[in-house]
Amino acid sequence: MTGEFELIREITADLPTGPGVVLGVGDDAAALRFAGDAVVSTDLMVENVHFKRVWSSARDIGRKAVAINVSDIESMGATPTAVVVALAVPKDTDPRWIRELSDGVREECERAGVSLVGGDMSRSATVTVCVTALGDLGDRPPVTRSGARPGDVVAVTGRLGWAGAGLAALSRGFRSPKDVVAEAQCPTVPYGEGVVANDAGATAMMDVSDGLVQDLGHIARASGVAVELDSSRLEVAEPMERVGAATGKDPVGFVLGGGEDHALVATFPSAADVPAGWRVVGAVSEGEGVTVDGEVPEFTGWDHFA
Amino acid sequence: MTGEFELIREITADLPTGPGVVLGVGDDAAALRFAGDAVVSTDLMVENVHFKRVWSSARDIGRKAVAINVSDIESMGATPTAVVVALAVPKDTDPRWIRELSDGVREECERAGVSLVGGDMSRSATVTVCVTALGDLGDRPPVTRSGARPGDVVAVTGRLGWAGAGLAALSRGFRSPKDVVAEAQCPTVPYGEGVVANDAGATAMMDVSDGLVQDLGHIARASGVAVELDSSRLEVAEPMERVGAATGKDPVGFVLGGGEDHALVATFPSAADVPAGWRVVGAVSEGEGVTVDGEVPEFTGWDHFA
Repeated sequence: MTGEFELIREITADLPTGPGVVLGVGDDAAALRFAGDAVVSTDLMVENVHFKRVWSSARDIGRKAVAINVSDIESMGATPTAVVVALAVPKDTDPRWIRELSDGVREECERAGVSLVGGDMSRSATVTVCVTALGDLGDRPPVTRSGARPGDVVAVTGRLGWAGAGLAALSRGFRSPKDVVAEAQCPTVPYGEGVVANDAGATAMMDVSDGLVQDLGHIARASGVAVELDSSRLEVAEPMERVGAATGKDPVGFVLGGGEDHALVATFPSAADVPAGWRVVGAVSEGEGVTVDGEVPEFTGWDHFA
Repeated sequence: MTGEFELIREITADLPTGPGVVLGVGDDAAALRFAGDAVVSTDLMVENVHFKRVWSSARDIGRKAVAINVSDIESMGATPTAVVVALAVPKDTDPRWIRELSDGVREECERAGVSLVGGDMSRSATVTVCVTALGDLGDRPPVTRSGARPGDVVAVTGRLGWAGAGLAALSRGFRSPKDVVAEAQCPTVPYGEGVVANDAGATAMMDVSDGLVQDLGHIARASGVAVELDSSRLEVAEPMERVGAATGKDPVGFVLGGGEDHALVATFPSAADVPAGWRVVGAVSEGEGVTVDGEVPEFTGWDHFA
């Protein structure tokens, strides 16, 4: 890519770095210091699979790539500390578009409290962003998918269904309601809540990326338990009602099956353990699978743009 | 992608993990324990930019994606410990091709002594592999690009120019000499030599991915020094002579400018510090830039398939 080195120098100039960064951007690798065990997760975001350039600005795409990866660090109950970002764009991409994307990356890093410590830039026929996020467990254990026990309660925090409703609106050619469309362009990750849940004794946790029912299915399977959701406890925000009415869909479906939410769902030993800002939506019992109001829901979860 | 979960389960079954792995594949993130500071690096490999499916098998592509990333960990003087791998392939990709690629990933992880601890799989119009590699510095400092000092010697280990010569052969429709073509398909990274160089007192180090002259230019710039190469000290292996003769190119050009070698180049305080298996090829002096036999070389380095 012509000018690759210059552009990288420009977009990595004066990067702020946190206390755990021994060596930031600019060498073959970054060096990081962890207080405890480290957690690491990677995700690809691919044009026309995870985003469309007609629906999302470069800034949205940069922000979202960071947000959805840091969300995986939150879901382990760790403190997010750093990300590396690999970006591939077509040869003729306007450098301003790349700068705007990198502004979005920086903005979301700031919001998440992580340092951008490295990256890669390449050509590709398809715009692709791969972010790897790192976090520090300190003296905490990781919160896995496999610790849910019968008798636990299920609780969520973050915006469930908003991104799915926003995508449904965008798919019909609408740009509103703005609140939900914005969540489809970049989800509002409940930064900091992963550690809150860990300290509150969460027994299992995930971020909701494939839809609440499907992701709870992962927890149920990994933990060897059944999960029962109570739909009357789910919050269906007003903009979702509007999208439901406009698209002829039951808005509860967005909450139960909408993907790319990046809300957090966790299980806790009892309702008394559930932190402020979390909402109890169900319970764990012996058995297997996920039920909603006692029945197996029909939809199978999120399939990108399927 | 249809069957995504099943395929991931299959290709991640029975993954061996090293002692630093607290939690491997299968949760939202892996958990790792580092003895000292951690190093992290990420690289994208994109179809028709970094590889062509007609030139490389799926296994080669999987191996190379790991090799070129672990190479960055070596170049910091750290012990490679883990990788995460994100893969995107077109919707109609034969699952056997994906399995073969994942076999290549496993094989190279074993060779490099690293654990595969996580990943992501997605659809994309363009085959893309993004690997993030992690390493452990233990009680060692990182070897950066900026520590070279006038009076240091420059030394290399690994196969310089082989990958470039192999690519030149492939570009002309040849599949031989097999030795150099194999290096273009997947470089032989000198695993373990990064720590050897660090312990020997290397003052600066890089892996040679953009060509020896260009990468030494990065060290010269970062260190504020000049680098003088002595071409009579460079090893031009026999298969490179053959490719040079067949393509009408000076084979020394492959050694000086060929990309994707993933050999290691480092500077040491004196020739006496240079470890066995490394070859002294030049010296560091006051000034700037890189010269070969006292002259500024003409080529500017590696540009993927340009």
